Amino acid sequence: MSARTLKLTISYDGTRLVGWQRQASGETVQGLLEAALSRIEGGPVTVHGAGRTDAGVHALGQVASVAVSSALPADVLLRAINASLPADVRVVDVRDVESSFHARFSARLKTYRYLIRNEAIVSPFEQRYVWQVPEPLDLEAMHAAATALVGTHDFAAFQSAGAASTTTVRTIERSEMSVRTGSVLVLPPGGADEVDGDGRASRLLAYDVCGNGFLRHMVRAIVGTLVDIGRGRSPSERMAVLLDGGSRSDAGPTAPAQGLFLVRVDYH
Amino acid sequence: MSARTLKLTISYDGTRLVGWQRQASGETVQGLLEAALSRIEGGPVTVHGAGRTDAGVHALGQVASVAVSSALPADVLLRAINASLPADVRVVDVRDVESSFHARFSARLKTYRYLIRNEAIVSPFEQRYVWQVPEPLDLEAMHAAATALVGTHDFAAFQSAGAASTTTVRTIERSEMSVRTGSVLVLPPGGADEVDGDGRASRLLAYDVCGNGFLRHMVRAIVGTLVDIGRGRSPSERMAVLLDGGSRSDAGPTAPAQGLFLVRVDYH
Repeated sequence: MSARTLKLTISYDGTRLVGWQRQASGETVQGLLEAALSRIEGGPVTVHGAGRTDAGVHALGQVASVAVSSALPADVLLRAINASLPADVRVVDVRDVESSFHARFSARLKTYRYLIRNEAIVSPFEQRYVWQVPEPLDLEAMHAAATALVGTHDFAAFQSAGAASTTTVRTIERSEMSVRTGSVLVLPPGGADEVDGDGRASRLLAYDVCGNGFLRHMVRAIVGTLVDIGRGRSPSERMAVLLDGGSRSDAGPTAPAQGLFLVRVDYH
Repeated sequence: MSARTLKLTISYDGTRLVGWQRQASGETVQGLLEAALSRIEGGPVTVHGAGRTDAGVHALGQVASVAVSSALPADVLLRAINASLPADVRVVDVRDVESSFHARFSARLKTYRYLIRNEAIVSPFEQRYVWQVPEPLDLEAMHAAATALVGTHDFAAFQSAGAASTTTVRTIERSEMSVRTGSVLVLPPGGADEVDGDGRASRLLAYDVCGNGFLRHMVRAIVGTLVDIGRGRSPSERMAVLLDGGSRSDAGPTAPAQGLFLVRVDYH
């Protein structure tokens, strides 16, 4: 009999992982967590994640729920789980929750961030965490298009083929593009006066999106569409047209996994 | 005949590299740069680095000099070199300099930074770039000891056995310890309210040192000694005693390579 339900908050660098969901081969976050917890429990354990991040996608605050019988205090469990995990996956918080808590079904809001390095050269320290788009991008058009997503819409045009969600309607609370100067890494500048040779300022673009749920590859399809708009391949009005009736082939390509971070999951 | 001397500024993530200096096996920054330039030159090329960083040490602004016969403009050379390099090594600047310029012999000042994560849990995104020291550290004692290094001293106690420098006297212009809150990576906070369970604030310590030259493993031996002082294993006065007459066995252990960054090299 499981006496407790735990809520785990997990951070991971997705670079070498094959995603959240347990698979026949390759290391997954779910698989690693279940192996670590099984060692503590002395028997099989099933971990439920808030979102099934794809191979290469990172997380700062993924959330998982799990039923356990262990009587160890939460902080001891945290250390014990981390002792069994590789350094690219860390449980950053463990706490006891009501038995009705389910990381996926109880989730109210998920927040993702996507990073784009809009420069000719990508720093070795951020190459694993950004999508490099060296061409000039029209940030105003991208931001206008991003804003059009806010509200309740049918996002079928941003769902990958083969996905089978019962409904493709989702509510987006926040969707915005911002420019950040400097580096992903907090480090002092190097010896070069100017990294970029063509006179443009150093640009790191962040796309932040928050909503009650996301379809398979939805954030990456939105980002691919935003970059198409930024490059001038599509007008920014395209975004509104894609909502509520557009098809996947009208949207942009799926942006690479490595720029995407599951930032946090909020609950009631 | 070489018609030009180039100054290259290079950034690299040292994690999987076996250091700066060309070796019989394993990828080195010098070896990768020479291979990339040889392809452009159509013949052997020798690259001289400002400092021979060890295996695992990172660089934001390493500097190298090289004589070439290519007539390609500097910005074209920069792109051509980077096209031949792996993503964890990037040339961030190429410029023409006087033929008398030598990256090592012309160097006036080198700046290093060492990062210490003083917490129970290290984020997956910074585990490659910090030394984790989970025990409480007396930062005031560490800072006092760091400050004692400023000036011209005999640093023999901080040189690795087997090294054979003609003189062990060096001048240190800046040596300081500071606390930084937040993460090495510029990312929004995850879902956990508090990563650290024991009530201490989240702490990233940075040791910044700048001088006219450094002996083999000198920065890492200084950091090892500072951490011994921070842990209370040595008094902060130990640092002054080690200078001008101390022996290597009286200093602390050599800190791990992964926390060290060659930040920049300055020239006359």
